[in-house]
Amino acid sequence: MTGTPPTPEPRGAETPVDASIAHAGEAGILARILPGLPASAAVEVGPGDDAAVVRLASRRLVVTTDTLMEGSDFLMHATRPAWIGAKAAVQNLADVAAMGARPEALVVAVSAPASTRTEVLEEISAALAARAARDGAVVVGGDLGTGPVLSVTVTALGSLPDGAAPIERSGARPDDVLAIGAPVLGRSGAGLAWILAGRADDPVAADAVAWHDAPDPDLALGWTAARRPDGTPVATAMLDVSDGLVRDGGRLARASGVVLDLDAGSLTRDAEALEPLAEPLGADPWAWVLHGGEEHAMLATFPSGTVPDGFRRIGTVREAAGDERAGLVLLDGAPVRGEGFDHFA
Amino acid sequence: MTGTPPTPEPRGAETPVDASIAHAGEAGILARILPGLPASAAVEVGPGDDAAVVRLASRRLVVTTDTLMEGSDFLMHATRPAWIGAKAAVQNLADVAAMGARPEALVVAVSAPASTRTEVLEEISAALAARAARDGAVVVGGDLGTGPVLSVTVTALGSLPDGAAPIERSGARPDDVLAIGAPVLGRSGAGLAWILAGRADDPVAADAVAWHDAPDPDLALGWTAARRPDGTPVATAMLDVSDGLVRDGGRLARASGVVLDLDAGSLTRDAEALEPLAEPLGADPWAWVLHGGEEHAMLATFPSGTVPDGFRRIGTVREAAGDERAGLVLLDGAPVRGEGFDHFA
Repeated sequence: MTGTPPTPEPRGAETPVDASIAHAGEAGILARILPGLPASAAVEVGPGDDAAVVRLASRRLVVTTDTLMEGSDFLMHATRPAWIGAKAAVQNLADVAAMGARPEALVVAVSAPASTRTEVLEEISAALAARAARDGAVVVGGDLGTGPVLSVTVTALGSLPDGAAPIERSGARPDDVLAIGAPVLGRSGAGLAWILAGRADDPVAADAVAWHDAPDPDLALGWTAARRPDGTPVATAMLDVSDGLVRDGGRLARASGVVLDLDAGSLTRDAEALEPLAEPLGADPWAWVLHGGEEHAMLATFPSGTVPDGFRRIGTVREAAGDERAGLVLLDGAPVRGEGFDHFA
Repeated sequence: MTGTPPTPEPRGAETPVDASIAHAGEAGILARILPGLPASAAVEVGPGDDAAVVRLASRRLVVTTDTLMEGSDFLMHATRPAWIGAKAAVQNLADVAAMGARPEALVVAVSAPASTRTEVLEEISAALAARAARDGAVVVGGDLGTGPVLSVTVTALGSLPDGAAPIERSGARPDDVLAIGAPVLGRSGAGLAWILAGRADDPVAADAVAWHDAPDPDLALGWTAARRPDGTPVATAMLDVSDGLVRDGGRLARASGVVLDLDAGSLTRDAEALEPLAEPLGADPWAWVLHGGEEHAMLATFPSGTVPDGFRRIGTVREAAGDERAGLVLLDGAPVRGEGFDHFA
């Protein structure tokens, strides 16, 4: 391995015409994708009509949408179609889970260059449906079109039973415990660093690259551990870590009018585990732990003494001394530098 | 006017850095867009948390998703941001309406080059929300990201009351009347022809170009005229014309196992009205009437004698003589040539 980024072959040059989506046509692609999608008794009208009809568990719809865009969100030479599909599902399922709701259905809009191999769309679709199925959700519809690069926009749909309050970002209270629903943090940031260094194929980084390209957090924590069996929230606030622990923690803190104080001791093991990946790049593993995005693990606050199984304590909620401190994220009492990830920066 | 396509200025060159979305940042853009969105009592949690929570009229969710992609679906120099927003809304609202359901909510994922003016996203968002509001739907969430071109993916959400059957494509029966919920057909195809001829700015074509870029069909026909007040469907089958009368009619015919026989006399006025636009291009106005897409009007079949106000008769449903004829679309009894629009062709 060298530090030089591999030059991706132009897609058009390597795709035989009769293997492309332009050759298969919209109907041909759907004929290959739709039979592989799992069915569900909740689906009254599935793909193929103007819209799908799905019987939700309740009429209190929980809905979110998010795009994975080639170039901005992934590089074709550093990922796999199946990982793109899994990640497109996860980043949306995580947003439903973070409201304390169980995902029930997905719709998917895919755009791709006309020269894209039909297999690429089949693999994306299969992996997306499989990841959704693990969380109990079924793909009920979609849209296919052409575009200059590959992009996958998923809308995830769930519902909340009557009387079950959504778990918003704004409910954290001083002295609550801050906890994360993940055994390790920072792998996604580490994987991204190796990809951006042009070393996505290095065996040393294989696990981190795979985690970045297809993070696999335990999303069920959002609608199980974060609620009591009767539906009452245990978590006082929750979101998923998509743009980094500090940045997303800051959003929760700002919405709740509090300060978050991360406990460095509880994150030391995470940083140490990343040392072998940080050293060859001259990187700081703490940056990956604190600012690495695309983990999609549940970040929640709980009243002291109630942290459920599957979550681990990583800090404490503190009172904001005046408006100018609300939203601040500290590490052992001192402000954290760095800003995480802005999609437009 | 000449026949030469206007050369669009490169977006980056004309956008002062401090007017771009890269300068505004995700939070800055949302701060300008979100206050303009209409509110609704049905929305428990609106934009800003991980997901929205919306109280639907019933738990029988109707959902569809569709993308408008620069280059594939529109050309920046031949449209306006407000038209892009309106069309992105209409093409999705139409799919909900075509199930005989009232749209209730939308979510929107927008990707754009970092140099895009913030105003472009504001205008898209405002027009999209305004068009949705006219049909009773509210924008409840979205996603913003960067990409090589502008793209807008909308997911439209509605619901069906308990006991109200969805109006699918498969219910047309021999001797039903075929009817269209539009006073004129073919304007969108005409507008597209003038755009592709590089004459989008010609005053002669202004109305047709505007209709192509932002078609304005009466979508409420789908959940009002196509049903009785008690919710019973009047239409036996329905879809919206997105890829052309013949192509979409063929889908309805195939799903229903019937043949559609268009009545040329009932469409003559549509073709004649387009003559002044066809002649300068040497085009056939009938091609626009029969094959022009992106009208998004409701195309439905009704038992003879029940065509409701807002629809007009354009043909008859005939029995298919064997499987090989099911799906056929005829014009005065003879097969129609041409295939409409394939997104991948």
